[in-house]
Amino acid sequence: MRIAVDAMGSDYAPKEIVLGAVAAAKEYQCDIILVGDQEQILPVLDTYSNWRELGISVQQASEVIEMHEHPGVSVRKKKDASVVVATRLVKEGICDAVVSAGSTGAAVAAALFGLGRIKGIERPAIATHIPNLTGTTIMLDSGANVDSKPKNLVQSAIMGSIYAEYVLGMNRPRVGLLNIGEEDSKGNEQVLTTFPLLKQLKTIHFIGNVEGRDTFNGTVDIVVCDGFVGNVVLKTGEGLVSFLTTLIKNTIKNSGWLAKLAAFLLLPSIKKLKKKLDYDEYGGAPLLGVNGGFIICHGSSKAKAIKNAIRVACEFSEQKVVEHISENIVKEGVGANE
Amino acid sequence: MRIAVDAMGSDYAPKEIVLGAVAAAKEYQCDIILVGDQEQILPVLDTYSNWRELGISVQQASEVIEMHEHPGVSVRKKKDASVVVATRLVKEGICDAVVSAGSTGAAVAAALFGLGRIKGIERPAIATHIPNLTGTTIMLDSGANVDSKPKNLVQSAIMGSIYAEYVLGMNRPRVGLLNIGEEDSKGNEQVLTTFPLLKQLKTIHFIGNVEGRDTFNGTVDIVVCDGFVGNVVLKTGEGLVSFLTTLIKNTIKNSGWLAKLAAFLLLPSIKKLKKKLDYDEYGGAPLLGVNGGFIICHGSSKAKAIKNAIRVACEFSEQKVVEHISENIVKEGVGANE
Repeated sequence: MRIAVDAMGSDYAPKEIVLGAVAAAKEYQCDIILVGDQEQILPVLDTYSNWRELGISVQQASEVIEMHEHPGVSVRKKKDASVVVATRLVKEGICDAVVSAGSTGAAVAAALFGLGRIKGIERPAIATHIPNLTGTTIMLDSGANVDSKPKNLVQSAIMGSIYAEYVLGMNRPRVGLLNIGEEDSKGNEQVLTTFPLLKQLKTIHFIGNVEGRDTFNGTVDIVVCDGFVGNVVLKTGEGLVSFLTTLIKNTIKNSGWLAKLAAFLLLPSIKKLKKKLDYDEYGGAPLLGVNGGFIICHGSSKAKAIKNAIRVACEFSEQKVVEHISENIVKEGVGANE
Repeated sequence: MRIAVDAMGSDYAPKEIVLGAVAAAKEYQCDIILVGDQEQILPVLDTYSNWRELGISVQQASEVIEMHEHPGVSVRKKKDASVVVATRLVKEGICDAVVSAGSTGAAVAAALFGLGRIKGIERPAIATHIPNLTGTTIMLDSGANVDSKPKNLVQSAIMGSIYAEYVLGMNRPRVGLLNIGEEDSKGNEQVLTTFPLLKQLKTIHFIGNVEGRDTFNGTVDIVVCDGFVGNVVLKTGEGLVSFLTTLIKNTIKNSGWLAKLAAFLLLPSIKKLKKKLDYDEYGGAPLLGVNGGFIICHGSSKAKAIKNAIRVACEFSEQKVVEHISENIVKEGVGANE
């Protein structure tokens, strides 16, 4: 396997990206091409004398797409942007998958323009890992699209199932439709139309409607939802966690020395807790439905997240997720023109 | 002021409802009619020898709408249901507002059938209080509707502003449109169509798009969103808080005695923290847009929440929120047929 890693565009690029790539090259059986500004990448790489022997190489790309730029426009205009060049390496068969922690919009646009969609897939979907009491829940679409149509949700259910089965090793992953109640009759037009379509599928294990709380209690493996809804839910969740953290810190700060001592004594437990909540373990979110592996990482990813994302990218390619998606879309008869 | 309190239908009914009503009658200048099964209500009331002097009376209602029942059907069929009778007391001018902790769907249906909508309002909206770093954010609609139209969101913005101004005493409350990014060009069709409409309004202080995280950081007072989205966000938020709580408890349980001692020492701080997160302080969520005051409480409300909801119901009526909504809908020219 050979993975193209976009070394630019994120909060800690290129340093943390390079460190993550080196760690992955050491640990996993894969070659890595770091794509970006050589002048910034090489000084970090050169702190490792043996980086070439680890199977790492560098592909120059002179441009970067910044977070605030319009994804579609910038991907078309900046032909030498790191994410565009990384994607091209997959398109040309030089690499098997891309890992990028740059702008999510740019990543989706680069993947769509550079790799195209799997035959039959109308729109790709981002599958995000959310920690739950027993492991992880996948939520998709979490923002590749807005105004998802029922057919998009159906295709997401199939794509998410394949990812969970082949990459995460889940057996018959449980698929739920995100709704405002568990009864079949609940919901807006979009989910009411989607529900019977999901029920008809033969290749997935559909368990019916689920509510927001189910995302965290381990009763569902794959939560299918509209891209707008998924994105709002994820960002609200992030906001809520950071709000609670600030609140706890402020409360302790305004308490007496006993509370401060207690908080200090709790640090090891808090560290254990943080590890449980650590998105980094999964590295990133696969963009499902495009013609190739494409793992999108959080803009603030550090080395560990990048390392894990590279592992996921390898497994994604080894397990032939794209081919399985293509097969099951045909098998279910839910392709774009069917 | 005279408030009709639905004494049935919630998790702790009628006991906690009655206790809350007694506390409110003692503290606030208002009369209360408890509506429900006398045989269950009176034994609790009779633990207070002076409940009649407090301005409390009981109105018999023999039926209850349970959580699992279809709201529209049951409200039409069960004419003697506590929530239906309580609403009728407002319709007939005997009471000024309703407080109910029963099924939210039944409450909305009872209010719609019993009180009707304010002239010009297409759909009512539930305005829920969410704690933030500096106080409270109002999110609406949080579940009265699904598939909200841009006009519904515009009316929600006006209704939420009036509630925040007159009942919560906010000065020029900041209204934000819930979106997946802050740029004007972001979003699905619904919010893209709504954005310019909100910008045109003269009676509200529109600050543009906001993201989920802004709900908690105190930068926006009123978050306007689709009822499906709002409901999913609220339920996911509740699920996340309970997930984190369980995780913290489990972590401490599996730690050594030092961590357990530390957690014990932190209890006073945790209590302070819980108070900050306490939805009970606001008692409930007003249903805005119906022809009368209607405060919907959480199904697990205890006495304190009911007491505070009764206070809000009084202020809602005293401040003539319904009349102000009606005026501003006309002033802005955004009524149902305009």
